[in-house]
Amino acid sequence: MFQINEHYLQLGESYLFSTIARKVEQFSATHPGADIIRLGIGDVTLPLSPAVISALHRSVDEMGTKESFRGYGPEQGYAFLREAITETDFRKRGINISPAEIFVSDGSKSDTGNIGDLLGEGNVVAITDPVYPVYLDTTLMRIGRSDRIRLLRCSGENGFLPELPQERVDIVYLCYPNNPTGTVMTREELTTWVDWALVNESLILFDAAYEAFIRDESIPRSIYEIEGARRCAIEFRSFSKSAGFTGLRCSYTVVPEELMVITHSGESVSLHYLWNRRQSTKFNGTPYIIQRAAEAVYSPAGQQEMQVMIDSYMENAAVIRKGLMDHGYTLYGGEHSPYIWLQCPDGLDSWQFFDHLLEKCHIVGTPGVGFGAAGEGYFRLTAFNSAERTVEAIGRIARLSSTR
Amino acid sequence: MFQINEHYLQLGESYLFSTIARKVEQFSATHPGADIIRLGIGDVTLPLSPAVISALHRSVDEMGTKESFRGYGPEQGYAFLREAITETDFRKRGINISPAEIFVSDGSKSDTGNIGDLLGEGNVVAITDPVYPVYLDTTLMRIGRSDRIRLLRCSGENGFLPELPQERVDIVYLCYPNNPTGTVMTREELTTWVDWALVNESLILFDAAYEAFIRDESIPRSIYEIEGARRCAIEFRSFSKSAGFTGLRCSYTVVPEELMVITHSGESVSLHYLWNRRQSTKFNGTPYIIQRAAEAVYSPAGQQEMQVMIDSYMENAAVIRKGLMDHGYTLYGGEHSPYIWLQCPDGLDSWQFFDHLLEKCHIVGTPGVGFGAAGEGYFRLTAFNSAERTVEAIGRIARLSSTR
Repeated sequence: MFQINEHYLQLGESYLFSTIARKVEQFSATHPGADIIRLGIGDVTLPLSPAVISALHRSVDEMGTKESFRGYGPEQGYAFLREAITETDFRKRGINISPAEIFVSDGSKSDTGNIGDLLGEGNVVAITDPVYPVYLDTTLMRIGRSDRIRLLRCSGENGFLPELPQERVDIVYLCYPNNPTGTVMTREELTTWVDWALVNESLILFDAAYEAFIRDESIPRSIYEIEGARRCAIEFRSFSKSAGFTGLRCSYTVVPEELMVITHSGESVSLHYLWNRRQSTKFNGTPYIIQRAAEAVYSPAGQQEMQVMIDSYMENAAVIRKGLMDHGYTLYGGEHSPYIWLQCPDGLDSWQFFDHLLEKCHIVGTPGVGFGAAGEGYFRLTAFNSAERTVEAIGRIARLSSTR
Repeated sequence: MFQINEHYLQLGESYLFSTIARKVEQFSATHPGADIIRLGIGDVTLPLSPAVISALHRSVDEMGTKESFRGYGPEQGYAFLREAITETDFRKRGINISPAEIFVSDGSKSDTGNIGDLLGEGNVVAITDPVYPVYLDTTLMRIGRSDRIRLLRCSGENGFLPELPQERVDIVYLCYPNNPTGTVMTREELTTWVDWALVNESLILFDAAYEAFIRDESIPRSIYEIEGARRCAIEFRSFSKSAGFTGLRCSYTVVPEELMVITHSGESVSLHYLWNRRQSTKFNGTPYIIQRAAEAVYSPAGQQEMQVMIDSYMENAAVIRKGLMDHGYTLYGGEHSPYIWLQCPDGLDSWQFFDHLLEKCHIVGTPGVGFGAAGEGYFRLTAFNSAERTVEAIGRIARLSSTR
């Protein structure tokens, strides 16, 4: 009989969001009047901006006439978008990245998942704990449960920032600003990682999906701000959270041309070549109209509208931070990230606090333990609800705290 | 140092279309007045139909207001599209497929490439020769060059239809109507394959991307028209050629719920579960607006407009077939497929005929050898140019043949 990739059988069930949904459903059924506020899922709520909507309508019209219709596009993305990306996200910031190094895609979930196609099964892979589950699950799919997967434990003690591995690690996934903890790495901290990777000939898979939320120019928005990163890092970027593209699907991945690897036979091979081969073979490009929408994000109007959206979410983050800190919560994130990571009060574990918050405040968040064992005792709130609902939610938590 | 998946190094370079482009460029440079007609690449040329364009504009507007904005959708696709697919493509044809068995995606290239994620490396994989290169390249990426890859040689002798394997084969890729040969399988022929798969406990990966071009109701448009296929086949479908979505990117894959595999430890596992796990982990769904566009293909207006497009391409196919046959060419396809596969005249090999056609007729086609060694001496023309240009092209070939 034909055989399957049995590594799939070693994956844990992804119960987190389904368990949350079931608990909320049960609560609603027994509390029909409850006005539930959701600060759980990391999805945006503001609509696409006018510049993006106009670009979509214009490009849809192009697709409706024979003269301007576009069929297959380049698998790597259209030059107009790769140039807009390079100009605004890199050149204007003094970062050396060329359009040829940009691969436009349909989402960072796809790219951070598919990048493993290029990597050997003998690598030792390090992943932070807690973590965005895709890195771990896609690594498990590829190499199975193994002592070659190392968890970099984060906790209050290290400020939820991983320490450099003391033993051999070939590949490390880093996500900053971080999901779920909202923490960021300073230039110095990121530099130590780049230096470590160069010395150890390791590869950094750097997920910068939340870079647009950074408010302090001294914090790096791209790993390529760090000297040497072009020789050791791949970076993933997304329009999902910055421009509200979660339902539109556009992202890009940067693979610098000097990122090389030596094969078993001693040959030097470029990862840019390998990723290009992967994408040309297993992907047929992001829709033309979506690429025009992404291009519009880089127009002057698009940039301004994006900033308004981000500011609005970050005001929510500030409301959550202040409200919780005023009531004695220990927390991380929310300053350069739409995620607030709080320590559950009164010694509650993650799910106990989930139940508590749902029952007492009618608020839904995400139990930290859902992102890994090291997340136990923590809890994630997101800044993606409306200003009004966020203020209301924090008021409820404040009243609860005052009476406890 | 970190390691790569060295199977990538065993891939041939994909020189085919770049070589064609270079040759055409050189010819144009030395023949500046030449009016070149392209019948090479399998991309559509007619614009999106009015029903599709309207659905796109409507859904773009939805994305611009807070009330109707849609963020992350289900990874498997929205219910509205999965239901429309099931109703028109299966239920109306008496085929038993449920919406839960449909996975909406961004293209059959992605799905036929990514399906390998689920499969064990010990499988013996059969691929026809000539073949759509993605099946071979993605298999090579996964398992490397190996005697576990078997080529099913097609030729004029077997009418460019593969014979059943005489030795063990665990997985076979079949594409009908075929790219590049344009051949189809009758119900009887496809039934022998399904019966073979059931007896041998093999898996058929059935690419039906061109089913909409079938003009004869007796030819199966889905493998699930064949008894037992739900237990041995995954089917890939695309909106690319049928509805002109090559630049819009939408496809779907059918994984029936009773398609099971026995693991090494004797456990029974469903491929539907595995593909769902893969897609939920490495994919974040097809854009909402694209799914609305695909839904519009199933509206009465959308269905009629699609038929007009297909009829138009198939008239081109008929022009090419008749013109070539009138001048003594031996050919396959073009009756239920937009591809015409012809034997190069006068003993020319594929590239010699390419040069000949370019120099004498200013026509660009695709050398058959580019699809595999068994394609040597053959040549692919496509029906996707305009009616006017197709007639002009065939007139040129006719004049050439008359004078030879």
